[in-house]
Formats: sequence, structure tokens, C-alpha cells
Amino acid sequence: MTQPLHTFPVRVYYEDTDMGGVVYHANYLRFIERARSDWVRQLGNDQNAMRDAGIVWVVRHIECDYRAAARFEDDLIIETGLNSLSGARLVMDQTVRRGDEVIFTAKVTAVCMTAQGRPVRLPAEIRALMKQS
Amino acid sequence: MTQPLHTFPVRVYYEDTDMGGVVYHANYLRFIERARSDWVRQLGNDQNAMRDAGIVWVVRHIECDYRAAARFEDDLIIETGLNSLSGARLVMDQTVRRGDEVIFTAKVTAVCMTAQGRPVRLPAEIRALMKQS
Amino acid sequence: MTQPLHTFPVRVYYEDTDMGGVVYHANYLRFIERARSDWVRQLGNDQNAMRDAGIVWVVRHIECDYRAAARFEDDLIIETGLNSLSGARLVMDQTVRRGDEVIFTAKVTAVCMTAQGRPVRLPAEIRALMKQS
Amino acid sequence: MTQPLHTFPVRVYYEDTDMGGVVYHANYLRFIERARSDWVRQLGNDQNAMRDAGIVWVVRHIECDYRAAARFEDDLIIETGLNSLSGARLVMDQTVRRGDEVIFTAKVTAVCMTAQGRPVRLPAEIRALMKQS
Repeated sequence: MTQPLHTFPVRVYYEDTDMGGVVYHANYLRFIERARSDWVRQLGNDQNAMRDAGIVWVVRHIECDYRAAARFEDDLIIETGLNSLSGARLVMDQTVRRGDEVIFTAKVTAVCMTAQGRPVRLPAEIRALMKQS
Repeated sequence: MTQPLHTFPVRVYYEDTDMGGVVYHANYLRFIERARSDWVRQLGNDQNAMRDAGIVWVVRHIECDYRAAARFEDDLIIETGLNSLSGARLVMDQTVRRGDEVIFTAKVTAVCMTAQGRPVRLPAEIRALMKQS
Repeated sequence: MTQPLHTFPVRVYYEDTDMGGVVYHANYLRFIERARSDWVRQLGNDQNAMRDAGIVWVVRHIECDYRAAARFEDDLIIETGLNSLSGARLVMDQTVRRGDEVIFTAKVTAVCMTAQGRPVRLPAEIRALMKQS
Repeated sequence: MTQPLHTFPVRVYYEDTDMGGVVYHANYLRFIERARSDWVRQLGNDQNAMRDAGIVWVVRHIECDYRAAARFEDDLIIETGLNSLSGARLVMDQTVRRGDEVIFTAKVTAVCMTAQGRPVRLPAEIRALMKQS
């Protein structure tokens, strides 16, 4: 994976588990989205302001691997790194760890769009910050 | 409970369960809301049109009892009955059953509101239909 | 409400919202359950160990009021207080706040049970801690 | 995509949407898992019996594309086809449609495992049925 730019903690609660006794597979997408929201927020990319301006982040493509199972009360760390950034498109590498153990990895492609579905170039400041952070 | 006016089937999937091996308690609120949506839809109350008109249903109060546990692949039936209806306020009795067994009961109070949070009287046609259905 | 014994922060993420632009009503039950888990954990009540011993917390009854709407990126505080405690039964008062504003209140009754559905008296140490905390 | 072997209807409810006014991206994984559960159930693969025998389906890898947005009260169809099947490993192609429009596609790799994490060969009957169905 690319160098992580951002780390984010997630604790596993009852709501996250399924009858297999582990985290339900779809919930990892919720976990890594919290991390992405936190990352762009720290960079100063206000998603509420974006929305008021009619612009939203849209997930376009995800590739993910389930490596191990997380369980109730596990303290997980989510690492997010920039894979590539061009115009309206942002590709991120995300890893969910429990200590040294890799639980889940994902490559997520998101696009910045208007409500009408037209891609919008990310503001230059944000792009610069993402590359540096 | 009041006479049920509407019945709605729900099958339990993996996503609905928790590590206790049963349906996660918060998910019954999702189940009974599907039933309410289906009911008002059958009465001709188009929630998308309401939203375009700036009006939404808002849940105000819930009282609920967990009587038994539902499990993966259970076929549940949700019964919805009208408890009371006055102006902008609708009180419904809802029961989740597995055959003859009662799994969950709830009394749900919802209010019809504008986006600005002002209560809106339900259209007379819908009110008449709700009382008859 | 009774004197809060425990406070717990929750930030609202995209996953928590619905098309009304606010937190989906069922998700408050997830939020307050995280707070209860955190509380009993701080008191030394290890839910994983309980489960291994064949004992689980089961929610029996909830009464809740939706007072105001929480939104994306709101930083909420959940206060949990003991309403009553007797044998196997624990009644908690929980309030979700955004600063001084009350968003949601709930009275939650939970029971400690075996896998076979028999109520189990809470260990005396935990009961003592709950009353003092 | 491979020839679909199974189709499954999903209606979009309030719980499935987010503040963008569309289905929250992680929820497509819930939708397509319901379809897979329904498919193996129709083939006679009883997941409750599997679990009692200490065997579960585990998702290993997902690749998915978000093509268009689904909305509240949309009636979606999920098509599931067999991409490949070998030993303990099952690869499925899944498409979520709204009429002729493709909303979401996924390639899902699942493995049949013991509770201890050892892969288990699928029973010959089920494998034969999956290939024929």
C-alpha cells in the first residue's frame, strides 16, 4: 500500500457483528467511509458546504479483500493513503488493522460530482493538501 | 392491539442478525418502518411527491417490547393498525409475528411536517382512507 | 432524567443519515447501545467473557422520544444514567445531546439472560459499581 | 456478465438511503447478499444446518462498480450468475438493475469454511445444482 496519510480508530460494537460472531462484511465499507470523511474534514474539505454548493463525493469503484475477521470490542485502526488524484477522481488505498494484523484492505475510487451527475474538478487547494498530507 | 389494517412480510437476512445469533434489536425499527411505508403507499400517499412538496413523516415517539427473538431466515409478518389519527399526528400499533408467536410490538407516533419543522394536517383523502383501510 | 453516570461521544457519519438529510430514526438505538456497551465495559463487565459463560444482555423494552434532528458531522454526547436495578433487570435513562440541545431521550430496560432465556442475577460487584459510578 | 441463474427483487426503503437522496453505497452489499442467500436456499443449501455443522460462507473478495443511483421506492432486480466454482471457492457475478438500467455490478468471491478457518469442499450435490441451475 501507499504511504498512509491518515489513521482513524474504530471500535467494534454489537451493531457491527452478525450471527457468525464477527463483523458483517458490508460494515467494513461503513468503517472506511468514516475514515475518508474524517480525512477530508481534517484537510478542510467541508462536505456540508460542498453539499450546499451542489457538489458531492460519489463512490465509483471498490476492490476489497477480507483477510481476517474482526470481533466485538476489537479496536481497529484504519489507514488511508492516496493512490492517485486527477481532476475529479480520487483513488485511495485503505487498510483496516488490529494491531499488526491486516483485517481488510480496499482500493476505493471516488469522484466529485454535481447533483446533475457532472464530474467537478477538485479545488486546487484541496488537491495540494491531499498530496502533501 | 387495534384491528390490523395492513400486513407485510419480512424475511430475516444475515445483515439483520448480530453475534447473539438473533435479529439485532434496532433492526425491528427498520422492519416496521418498511411496513408503514408500504401501507401509506398502498393508500396512495406518495412519499416522494410529499418530499417534493417539502413535507415529510417524522417519527416522534416509540414504545416497544421485545417478546421473543427472531432468527436468520425466519419469515416474519408485520401487522400495522391505526391507534389514533388527529390533524398532523398518526399513532400506529405494529406487531411482528412468526406464525402465531409475537416477536415484537411497538406503538409508533409519527407527525407530518414541513422541512422547517411545522406540523402539517394530513390531506383529508388520506385520513379517510387510513380510517377505512 | 436521573443523574448521568456515563457520557459517550458519537459523531454522525454519512451511513447514519437518510434522504431526509438527518439521522435515520432507528440509528439512535445503535448510538445509545454503543454508550451502554462502553459503560458496562468501564465498570469491568466483560461482555465477551459473559458470552463465553453463556450469558447475554437482552433488551426488553424501550420508550423513546425524538426531540430534534441530528445531522451529518454533528458531535453528539450520550448520557447514560441508572433508573433502577433489581436482580436481573436494569433500567437506564439515556439522552442524546448536541451541546445543550436534547436530540433524543430513551428509557431502556435490559435483562441479563442465559442462552436458554432464563434471567440471571447480575453479579453483586457489578451491581455495586453501577449504583456508585 | 455470465448467464444469470437467479433473480431477486429488492425494494428501496427509507433505511437504505442517505442524505445524498440515494441508496447509501455500502447497502448494495446487503442487497446482493440477500440475493445470494435466496439463491443457495433455493438450491437446498440450508445455511442454518451448515452453521450447526460448523461451516459458514465467508466473503473473501469483492470488486464492484457503481453505475447509477437507486432511490427510495425503486423496485430493483438482482441477477446472480456463476462465474466459477472450484472446491471450496465460489465466484459470482451480480448485477442490480432498475428495469433495463444497470445500477451496480459486483464480482463476489466466497469460500466455504469451518469455524476454525479451514476451507471446506462444497458438497457434490450443491456443486452440481449450482452449475445447472
